[in-house]
Amino acid sequence: MENRKLVLYIACSLDGRIAKPNNDMSFLDRVQVEGEDYGYYDFIKSIDTIILGRKTYEWVMTQVAEYPYKEQDVYVITRTERPKKDNITFYAGDLGELVTRLKSKPGKNIFCDGGAEIVHALLSAKLFDELVFSIIPVILGDGTTLFKAGIPEADLKLISSKAYDSGLVQLKYHINHGANG
Amino acid sequence: MENRKLVLYIACSLDGRIAKPNNDMSFLDRVQVEGEDYGYYDFIKSIDTIILGRKTYEWVMTQVAEYPYKEQDVYVITRTERPKKDNITFYAGDLGELVTRLKSKPGKNIFCDGGAEIVHALLSAKLFDELVFSIIPVILGDGTTLFKAGIPEADLKLISSKAYDSGLVQLKYHINHGANG
Repeated sequence: MENRKLVLYIACSLDGRIAKPNNDMSFLDRVQVEGEDYGYYDFIKSIDTIILGRKTYEWVMTQVAEYPYKEQDVYVITRTERPKKDNITFYAGDLGELVTRLKSKPGKNIFCDGGAEIVHALLSAKLFDELVFSIIPVILGDGTTLFKAGIPEADLKLISSKAYDSGLVQLKYHINHGANG
Repeated sequence: MENRKLVLYIACSLDGRIAKPNNDMSFLDRVQVEGEDYGYYDFIKSIDTIILGRKTYEWVMTQVAEYPYKEQDVYVITRTERPKKDNITFYAGDLGELVTRLKSKPGKNIFCDGGAEIVHALLSAKLFDELVFSIIPVILGDGTTLFKAGIPEADLKLISSKAYDSGLVQLKYHINHGANG
């Protein structure tokens, strides 16, 4: 059986930003096309677990009445433990231990839903298996950069590249962290 | 007659870096494949003028005995004027004036060959017409980022996207700086 993979699935601008200042993600509206989900439905079918950062979780909860993922095991990475809420575990332990434990169990893939801090921590700990980038045709110029300095160098293997009519380009890579990865 | 375009044609890592610390560009070796120039020859045929920064020029001159572009008008953007040397003009004037003057004359396209400071200045002044990115399948993690914060937001229109066997993906965009661009 193939191991479960930890997958980063994220949209960013050409200049590598995932939000404008104040978490403004309205740039995503540019590629909203009726009947086109850019493979999102298929991706969600391939995962059963979600990892995201506490700040991202709280931002999502300011936008919606209920957390949108009901059928997955959700882990919110936080410094301050809280009681479990339905399918959502607030996890204050070691990130590497969590991912290693999840990967050792049978299941579908694990979706990292951001934000930049958790992505940085997971890249630093060499825990990702796949990266899926949807590059939105825009330069934002300011806001949250996805890749902060200081992450380890990593080889990528292009799995697929797909350009859509809206100008969105989706790149899918396998990430190889090297012998000590 | 179509106007001459100012084109950024550059290779970068997935994390948006154009060099590792100390101008180490050895990551480009990963995609060296005999008989594959990734469209470079055709691109060079489409231009007759090159703009690059002084630091980039001096770095190139540490690597080669002679500046490699002999048949083009070359403008090295510098703060300290120097006498013209063969086809190379050392330009200390206003960058916007230079580009506007070049564009007003008939000719082929104008190639911006970096580095990051000149790219930042030209993006800030909204002078680019096309951006061609060759995304090398690697995360560098540290070094020179191409897009620094503070450039103006800009719409992009995807012209083409091509994935190569080596994993390099070349994205070509038209850039629209908006009404005041």
